[in-house]
Amino acid sequence: MTHPLYEKHQATLDAAVAAIRGRGYWTPYPEMPSPRIYGETAVDDGKKAFENHLGKDFALTQPGQSGWTAPERSPYGIELNVRYPVCEPEALVMAAQQAMEGWRQIGAAGRVGVCLEILDRLNKRSFEIAHAVMMTTGQGWMMAFQAGGPHAQDRGLEAVAYAWDEMSRVPAETVWEKPQGKNPPLKMRKHYEIVGRGIALVVGCGTFPTWNTYPGLFAALATGNPVIVKPHGNAILPAAITVRIAREVLAEQGLDANLVSLAVVEKRTDTQALATHPAVKSIDFTGGNVFGQWLIDNARQAQVYAELAGVNNVVIESTGNYKAMLRNLAFTLSLYSGQMCTTTQAILVPAGGIDTDQGHKSFDDVAADLGAAIDKFLSDTNTAAAVLGAIQSDDTLRRIAEAGEYGSVVLASKKIDHPDFPKAEVRTPVLLTCEASAEKSYMEERFGPISFVVRVADAATAVMLSERIVRQHGALTVGVYSTKPEIIDAMTNATLRAGVALSINLDGGVFVNQSAAFSDYHGVGMNPAANASYSDSAFVANRFRVVQRRYHVE
Amino acid sequence: MTHPLYEKHQATLDAAVAAIRGRGYWTPYPEMPSPRIYGETAVDDGKKAFENHLGKDFALTQPGQSGWTAPERSPYGIELNVRYPVCEPEALVMAAQQAMEGWRQIGAAGRVGVCLEILDRLNKRSFEIAHAVMMTTGQGWMMAFQAGGPHAQDRGLEAVAYAWDEMSRVPAETVWEKPQGKNPPLKMRKHYEIVGRGIALVVGCGTFPTWNTYPGLFAALATGNPVIVKPHGNAILPAAITVRIAREVLAEQGLDANLVSLAVVEKRTDTQALATHPAVKSIDFTGGNVFGQWLIDNARQAQVYAELAGVNNVVIESTGNYKAMLRNLAFTLSLYSGQMCTTTQAILVPAGGIDTDQGHKSFDDVAADLGAAIDKFLSDTNTAAAVLGAIQSDDTLRRIAEAGEYGSVVLASKKIDHPDFPKAEVRTPVLLTCEASAEKSYMEERFGPISFVVRVADAATAVMLSERIVRQHGALTVGVYSTKPEIIDAMTNATLRAGVALSINLDGGVFVNQSAAFSDYHGVGMNPAANASYSDSAFVANRFRVVQRRYHVE
Repeated sequence: MTHPLYEKHQATLDAAVAAIRGRGYWTPYPEMPSPRIYGETAVDDGKKAFENHLGKDFALTQPGQSGWTAPERSPYGIELNVRYPVCEPEALVMAAQQAMEGWRQIGAAGRVGVCLEILDRLNKRSFEIAHAVMMTTGQGWMMAFQAGGPHAQDRGLEAVAYAWDEMSRVPAETVWEKPQGKNPPLKMRKHYEIVGRGIALVVGCGTFPTWNTYPGLFAALATGNPVIVKPHGNAILPAAITVRIAREVLAEQGLDANLVSLAVVEKRTDTQALATHPAVKSIDFTGGNVFGQWLIDNARQAQVYAELAGVNNVVIESTGNYKAMLRNLAFTLSLYSGQMCTTTQAILVPAGGIDTDQGHKSFDDVAADLGAAIDKFLSDTNTAAAVLGAIQSDDTLRRIAEAGEYGSVVLASKKIDHPDFPKAEVRTPVLLTCEASAEKSYMEERFGPISFVVRVADAATAVMLSERIVRQHGALTVGVYSTKPEIIDAMTNATLRAGVALSINLDGGVFVNQSAAFSDYHGVGMNPAANASYSDSAFVANRFRVVQRRYHVE
Repeated sequence: MTHPLYEKHQATLDAAVAAIRGRGYWTPYPEMPSPRIYGETAVDDGKKAFENHLGKDFALTQPGQSGWTAPERSPYGIELNVRYPVCEPEALVMAAQQAMEGWRQIGAAGRVGVCLEILDRLNKRSFEIAHAVMMTTGQGWMMAFQAGGPHAQDRGLEAVAYAWDEMSRVPAETVWEKPQGKNPPLKMRKHYEIVGRGIALVVGCGTFPTWNTYPGLFAALATGNPVIVKPHGNAILPAAITVRIAREVLAEQGLDANLVSLAVVEKRTDTQALATHPAVKSIDFTGGNVFGQWLIDNARQAQVYAELAGVNNVVIESTGNYKAMLRNLAFTLSLYSGQMCTTTQAILVPAGGIDTDQGHKSFDDVAADLGAAIDKFLSDTNTAAAVLGAIQSDDTLRRIAEAGEYGSVVLASKKIDHPDFPKAEVRTPVLLTCEASAEKSYMEERFGPISFVVRVADAATAVMLSERIVRQHGALTVGVYSTKPEIIDAMTNATLRAGVALSINLDGGVFVNQSAAFSDYHGVGMNPAANASYSDSAFVANRFRVVQRRYHVE
């Protein structure tokens, strides 16, 4: 069973499946916001489309609408005032459930084709979505375009590719013929139908409203499930545009638009009612430990795919390129003011210092030189504003203000005046030092631009400490700098045991906090920071079941 | 990375992977207990090997042994008195954990090769294991051989094939090269390592100690996890032989034998301690709802794959072959005295009766004719003893004795003297009728040879009732008899919604309670009777994780 949209996008799908198998570099969605790629008018069109949402009702023709709400506040200080429909959770659930049977009936190829069409339209709207991401999250423009647009689309496509890879290996039917010696064989025809588990709830976060939403959205949708997207209250617009595009594609195909709906809730209890609704069978969640653990404990009727807090760390034992290492780390700590779930928080350095191509550096040298590298990197205001973006939440502003309590300040955070947005809350990173024994300081996620250079007895202790941090507190990323194979091996084994991705000696244009779709698994799903990964088979395989029927044939 | 045992068994593995894709009939393990296939002396050798265990210590050289125990009591009334080592749960866990790293290091091909070698040895020991299964479970000889031997091995191999299918699609490494316009590309080498989640606990049941144990055992082992097998206290010997064979193969390969161990526990609290141990990351459980739900509620650190109770049902609307239908159902209800998790319990028949090739049959006709068919089928004592086997537990004997309370008796249970085992507890099925409204009677699992012909208003009501039973109480199997396409369609849609396998018009040599490995999914994993299936991708994909590392290369 095929489908026109499957055929339209088959080359992309085939390439995506090849990419997840080979895991080399690949993408169909160019990451450069260039008019030559996206069209001469794309830049202006996207900006206008974004601006056209401001101060208006964002209508979605969803069932059970009880009012409008406009909760977003831009970290850049501009007025957004987009009003979203507030819908009764029960009405969204009922509508999603009604839509499900038709979605099953078009089959895996049809569902995957529709998903690919949605992704293609999202890609064409990348500029509009980038502005929406930038202005709701505080990301800088380039990150908002790349991570909010093509890279998020990559992660969505990756999930579709995994879903297809799993679903396409289940045959629609077979003839089973069992020999019976001299008697005629037993012969049956058997049909195998892929059936979604039920309604999926995808709970977005305030910092990456598309990148962390698309994997769950597309994994669930492709495998036969209606999806209710519950965006973070301060980053609704990117999700709302996404949902509207999905609903448009579904409606064009004669499918029920309520297969994808937006749940903008005014009360926390509404989110909880959605999450614990008996018809909700999966929840994708990115966010804090408190609500994440609440979901795991209470939404027992659903599979929960959760990305929670962690304490990402880097061990520095030695380096063959001291300046490049410092530059690399300075960029990592500065990018989006450390408001990434992958940003390094603890940098573990031996008390006796490290050997480098610039001679031996003491612990204090390393801390001071890293502080200086950050300071230098951000010395140009335009660069600083572009890389740092703005601070997304008051909680993060508070953590920055309090950071001095946690250790000795090597580099203090500064407020920067953004050249384009005078009301933007822009802050440079704060870098602290502390002793390894000060676990309360550095061994708890302090989301935002707050990092610690931690004084550890020696390299072996640093490796052990890194492993313990990952096991106890979780991490999405770990790095190591060393010129010694035995240290690399020790870190490799530590990260294999603890279950975390390791970046080794990053000193160029790749950063520990970045992961590339189709190649890097984002999260391992094995330590407390996440119980799932973008993406692997486990991310999709349990979102559908196979229901069979069989009967005798001649 | 390959392995001598992988190469030895590669043809079998390749054929198994082809089988799970095509889902036609296939097996490498012949189901006929024939000397021509298994060797001239196999029959005698197997019997002697079994008898040689009786009254002796079953030594396993496991750590932490604190004593011996011999809890088994044969439903055939023979003396078993095999003494098994009792080991401290903590010692088994520690030993398993130590064994894990070496098991990861031999890689997926090595692990799969070792699993296939274990399965091959199990197959060669099928006669010995069949006697062990027969004498501990009460199964008849032919079932004990087939379901306890080759069919169980099939299910084990099927799980290995799925594990291999998933693991082999993760490349060991790649070179990722991202173009940078006019600048040199970013180039990284990335390694991807498959890492087991952690210790697997496989909790067996008293009726199918190999068939329900091998899927979890081999799925977990192949994906990199040590396995602790906790057999049912009355069906230890088949598991003990299995564990010993696994340990022999592991030791021969220079691997740590404690990768597979046997936990014979004397106290329920020891099982609970194992199940909730922080190092135990998955639990495969077959058994009752009470302990199953306890595991799901309490063993929160582990993925739980559970097969629980259900109310399997068949809707009879009409038939084109009345006698064949009755024969088929009579066999289903008689086989192993209904002590299968797949046996039909509720037969839903319209109050107005059914149309058949023998004319219209009233509700009472259908019930009476089915009773007569069972009676006739079991009229020969040798046939009856061979098909029925013996009653496995006192609880089932009690349920048979009480069955008359639940409805009107159409056919009463009889005690039969087994020709070979005078002390065997052999019982024929009891068949009852009741009204659809008597839900307390038929809508609760009554494990054993107790079935109900349920009077339902009409066919449409029967279809709806079947769906509701599956949704509320679970089922592993559902059947329908009808000559009308619209009824077949309605049942098809009902079972797709409820998530249960459907058998249509079985009137020959295939029975609703039988499922064939590589072709039939056993359980769907979507209704209350089971949250997993033998086997599909979801059964294996989340038992391992991929941990990556990456670094720049020139």
